[in-house]
This record gives sequence, C-alpha cells and structure tokens, in this order.
Amino acid sequence: MNDMSSTSQAAAPSDRTRLRRYNWLAKYDRDTINAIIDAGIVCQVGYVIDGMPYVTPTNHWRIDDYVYWHGSSASRMLKAQQKGIPVCFTVTHLDGIVFSRAAFNHNIQYRSVMAFGEAELCEEDVKREALATFTDRLAPGLWAYARPPAEQEWKATKVIRMRLDEVSAKVADGLPDEDADDYASDRWAGSVALKLVQLPPEPDPKLSPGIEMPPFVKDFRYVGVK
Amino acid sequence: MNDMSSTSQAAAPSDRTRLRRYNWLAKYDRDTINAIIDAGIVCQVGYVIDGMPYVTPTNHWRIDDYVYWHGSSASRMLKAQQKGIPVCFTVTHLDGIVFSRAAFNHNIQYRSVMAFGEAELCEEDVKREALATFTDRLAPGLWAYARPPAEQEWKATKVIRMRLDEVSAKVADGLPDEDADDYASDRWAGSVALKLVQLPPEPDPKLSPGIEMPPFVKDFRYVGVK
Repeated sequence: MNDMSSTSQAAAPSDRTRLRRYNWLAKYDRDTINAIIDAGIVCQVGYVIDGMPYVTPTNHWRIDDYVYWHGSSASRMLKAQQKGIPVCFTVTHLDGIVFSRAAFNHNIQYRSVMAFGEAELCEEDVKREALATFTDRLAPGLWAYARPPAEQEWKATKVIRMRLDEVSAKVADGLPDEDADDYASDRWAGSVALKLVQLPPEPDPKLSPGIEMPPFVKDFRYVGVK
Repeated sequence: MNDMSSTSQAAAPSDRTRLRRYNWLAKYDRDTINAIIDAGIVCQVGYVIDGMPYVTPTNHWRIDDYVYWHGSSASRMLKAQQKGIPVCFTVTHLDGIVFSRAAFNHNIQYRSVMAFGEAELCEEDVKREALATFTDRLAPGLWAYARPPAEQEWKATKVIRMRLDEVSAKVADGLPDEDADDYASDRWAGSVALKLVQLPPEPDPKLSPGIEMPPFVKDFRYVGVK
C-alpha cells in the first residue's frame, strides 16, 4: 500500500466529514472514496421530511464527481428530494470480524463512505444517459441488449444526483489495537474475513426455449465480488 | 413458504411504514422483521441534527422488541441521540441481481427493514447486560473469554436502544415481473445470487506462541452466512 502516506495527507473537506474519533481510519482522497462507492450498488440515503429522519436503501452509481440514484416519480423519497433538500449518502461494506483479547476491543473490518450534499433532480437528457450508464456499469452490454424503455416508463422514473464535495471514507482493515497487558495475556485474538461470492446464473423459469445466455451474463461479475 | 398467506395479513403499524409502491414486497409480521435484523450486525441509523440529515453505519443487535447500538460517550451521534430524538433504523441485505428482458425491469433481490422510533439512552444495568448479549450473540462464549471491561472502559461506552413499534420489512426474492410482450421476446432473463461467505480464522500476528484457538472461534459462524 505505497500510497498510504500520500492518502493520509488529504484533508477533510468540512468539519462534519472530519473524523474526530478513530481518526486514523479516515481517508479523504478521492481514489479511496470512489473505490468504496464503486464496490457496491446499494447505498443508504438519509433525508429529512417535516423534521423527521428517513433512511432509504436504494441502488446507486457514480459518474465522475456525482452519485446517482433513481426511483419512481411517485415515490415519497423522490418527491421530497427533487426540491433540492440536504441529503446524507452512505455506502458500507462489511469485510470481517475482529476477535480481541479485551471485550471492548472486538471490532469489525469495513469500508464506508459518508457524503453530505444536496439532492438535485436530473434533467431529462442527464437522466437518460445516467440510467444507461448505470445499467451498463452493472453488466457491460446490458443496456443495448434489453428492451429499451417506452416513453411512459421514462416518465415514471426520475433520477436524483448529488455532488461529491463533502465526503469522507473510513477503512478499518486491521486487527485489534490492544493494551500491553492484554497483548501479554494468554487469550487468543484474530479475525475472520467475510466476502461476497456470486453463484452461477439461473435462467428465469419463464424463459422461452432455445434462448441462449448472452455473453455479458456469462461473464458477469458483481462489482462487490473481489 | 407456507406462512406467506398469514404473514401478508399482518397490517402496517403506521402510515409511514406502509409500503405504497411495490406493496406486494411488504412484510409486517415480526418473525420476518426479526430474522432480517438478526441476519446482520451492521445497520444504518438516520437522525437529524440542526435540521440536517445524518446516517451512521454502526453495529446493531436485537433483544426482544428493541434494537440496540453502541458507541463512544464522546461521539456526536450518541450525544444527539441520548436526548431521545427521532431515529430511522435500517438494515439491508443484498441477495442477488435480476436481469430482465426490459431495461427498466432489472432489479435486485434483497431483504430490508425500516423502523422509526425514538432513541433511548440505556441505564447502566441495561447497558451492561446489552453489551454482554451483543458480544455473545456474535460468538457464544466470547464475553466470558475476553478480558472484562475496566470501569473506565464502561464509562467511555454508551448504548442506545429503540423500540420496534413502527417497523416494516421488504423482501424481494423473485424474478422480473414483465409484460406479456417482453415474455414473448427472444431476450434472456434470469438472476445471479450473491452470498456472503466467511474465510478460516486468521490469528493476530502478535499472538503469543502456544495459545490455542478457542472453540467459539473454531465454531464461529457469522449470522449473515447462510
């Protein structure tokens, strides 16, 4: 990890993205942040309606300095967000469990990103390009293969985006940091890594006979599978 | 799935937990909700500070009708939540990718829970019992094996809980629901399942020689590993 020294020099973009506790886990460089965002397609978006907190798990994707998510034009989340309200965007990947010598040093290995910004409803042309990008990001070739959206499907779908300005990452990939007394004890410590795997593609039971699996499905590799 | 008819009869506990769109995915019965919460240890907690949304990924556990999370007494999240503010608690598990015939029918298979409630700071005795339960839930026997917390460690840690009253789940485990024209097309459709696996335990490089791996590590099975 040769770039660790340089990445640790990137500064927090704002006070609320600056990690105060466990600040040695903080990463503010864009490559680390983008890699964590791009390693999944499920984010959690927080927003406020009438003073109350809402968190919605939804699919996300990134294009350059923006993260995007989409939904039905009728959804409560999108109706609120299209007004340009503040949102908090998070992505979290669990990588393992750390067993420590001291009860309060047990921990998890994880990568997470937290970003604050304002929701922005995408204009029609941005929306159409963004959804094609999302589909092809999932599996290259999928957009051209699938039946294109009808006008009424386009209308029923909105895309929100948020600029990645105020963003930070946390990467906890280590082992327990324990007191000298605990290291000297006769207790075992270590970790168990967790990873996501994908199973072979299963055809839809309603698939008509003789339809061959397209190459982008045969070659499909989920972005979160290492 | 014999209990599907009975589970679908459970009613939404409130207007904001009632699914309006994709309402056939909604589950309001407590067994389904508890199973989704218990199949992971990472949740996302949404809350509001000064009118702004925050989402914090954190470890959670459930005891009966409460979900719990913990943190440093100095944390911004816990300082805000201990006042009893409204929170939105979510847990999401990604189970697979659905490739459809129509571009806008691509989807994911997932299980998620969303709960609204008020954060409640746990009293000292509830806190101590809850943290022991959390540790043993992760790996039975871990609490008794590890070095017990010192008084100063107890003081530095707080536990928040939230009663599961206003809660709903979504379970999307199916295949695309497409139009008749799309079913009749010559396009392939199907799914790729994703699952979490755990790797063999790795000892801490700083482990003193001759310390044997305890049975609860040898037998460890992460709750999210099926």
